[in-house]
Amino acid sequence: MQRPRVEFWYEFASSYSYLSVMRVEALAGAAGVDVAWRPFLLGPVFLSLGWNDSPFNIYPPKGRYMWRDLARLAEKYDLPFRVPSRFPRNGLLAARVALLGVEEGWIAPFSREIMRANFAEDREIGDEEVVEAVLRDLGLPAGELLAAAVATDNKLALRHQTEEATALGLFGAPTFRVGDELFWGNDRLEDALDWANRRPG
Amino acid sequence: MQRPRVEFWYEFASSYSYLSVMRVEALAGAAGVDVAWRPFLLGPVFLSLGWNDSPFNIYPPKGRYMWRDLARLAEKYDLPFRVPSRFPRNGLLAARVALLGVEEGWIAPFSREIMRANFAEDREIGDEEVVEAVLRDLGLPAGELLAAAVATDNKLALRHQTEEATALGLFGAPTFRVGDELFWGNDRLEDALDWANRRPG
Repeated sequence: MQRPRVEFWYEFASSYSYLSVMRVEALAGAAGVDVAWRPFLLGPVFLSLGWNDSPFNIYPPKGRYMWRDLARLAEKYDLPFRVPSRFPRNGLLAARVALLGVEEGWIAPFSREIMRANFAEDREIGDEEVVEAVLRDLGLPAGELLAAAVATDNKLALRHQTEEATALGLFGAPTFRVGDELFWGNDRLEDALDWANRRPG
Repeated sequence: MQRPRVEFWYEFASSYSYLSVMRVEALAGAAGVDVAWRPFLLGPVFLSLGWNDSPFNIYPPKGRYMWRDLARLAEKYDLPFRVPSRFPRNGLLAARVALLGVEEGWIAPFSREIMRANFAEDREIGDEEVVEAVLRDLGLPAGELLAAAVATDNKLALRHQTEEATALGLFGAPTFRVGDELFWGNDRLEDALDWANRRPG
């Protein structure tokens, strides 16, 4: 029988994606559900909705609430958290690198370290030096991977994945997908895992 | 010692408010938390954010997702649900009537019946006849209450409550408030109750 599976769509710039990137592997493991990591870019998705910035910046009351909510949730999940001095940061390079880690099997720890850099250590994850340092700390060949990340085929792969996100009806991150069902938001992770076990996708 | 308390801000037109209106009394009771019911109007709040309609209508992918999410959640909570043929409905009269029920003690059952009419029975809760029928079914003096609902002082009371919502930083419904902490969304009801028990408001 096929193991149940959840697609995990996330963006390195996204604050609530931080919480799910840190939580998903342990929870999915406990639920016996495989995770397909799907980094993508929210920018083009937001543009298709008419937003040229994060809605948390466009709508200040939503933004103020979000940072407080995030601090409370980080405490609840026992995760480190510091309000970043820049938001949103550019997740493009990190997403390109992450794609390379899907087949090589290191996308989960890489994603966690990038997220920790952004939302716990206030580091500029848009800078190549930060991504390089994360790769090196994981014992990965940073130079090689950074070159492969910006090769044409990999750039196109991320573009296609982002187009697929829009085509699937995604409008935010994180989003969990089980079969044809979408679950939007870190607070739906548990529901998505329950659904995966109910109807194997 | 003061009993812990949560303010429950909701709007009769709001789909996720439906879920919380049906759930809040039982959950708060089990948690030993008092509920202060605070009906308000989302329209003016949305206008202050630049929206002249529900964001679920302005952004179709959000709207499609919301209805599916609502159906799944209603099933999870064992609540009746039917996608209403009109959305959002006008919650003005129902909110005015509800305010009268705060002191008289019938706001909870009245709110549940209005919500059931809107989101399970597809009835026009903006129509006086529907509100009247709900009041009568509850054994309340419908004619008297409908007259009191549109008296100037009561109209002003609802306006003030809506202005207070904006001043408190609310940007959607349902929102739970414990002390100075806001919890936005039906999915934060349990967190709000936990918070109330942690730091009595």
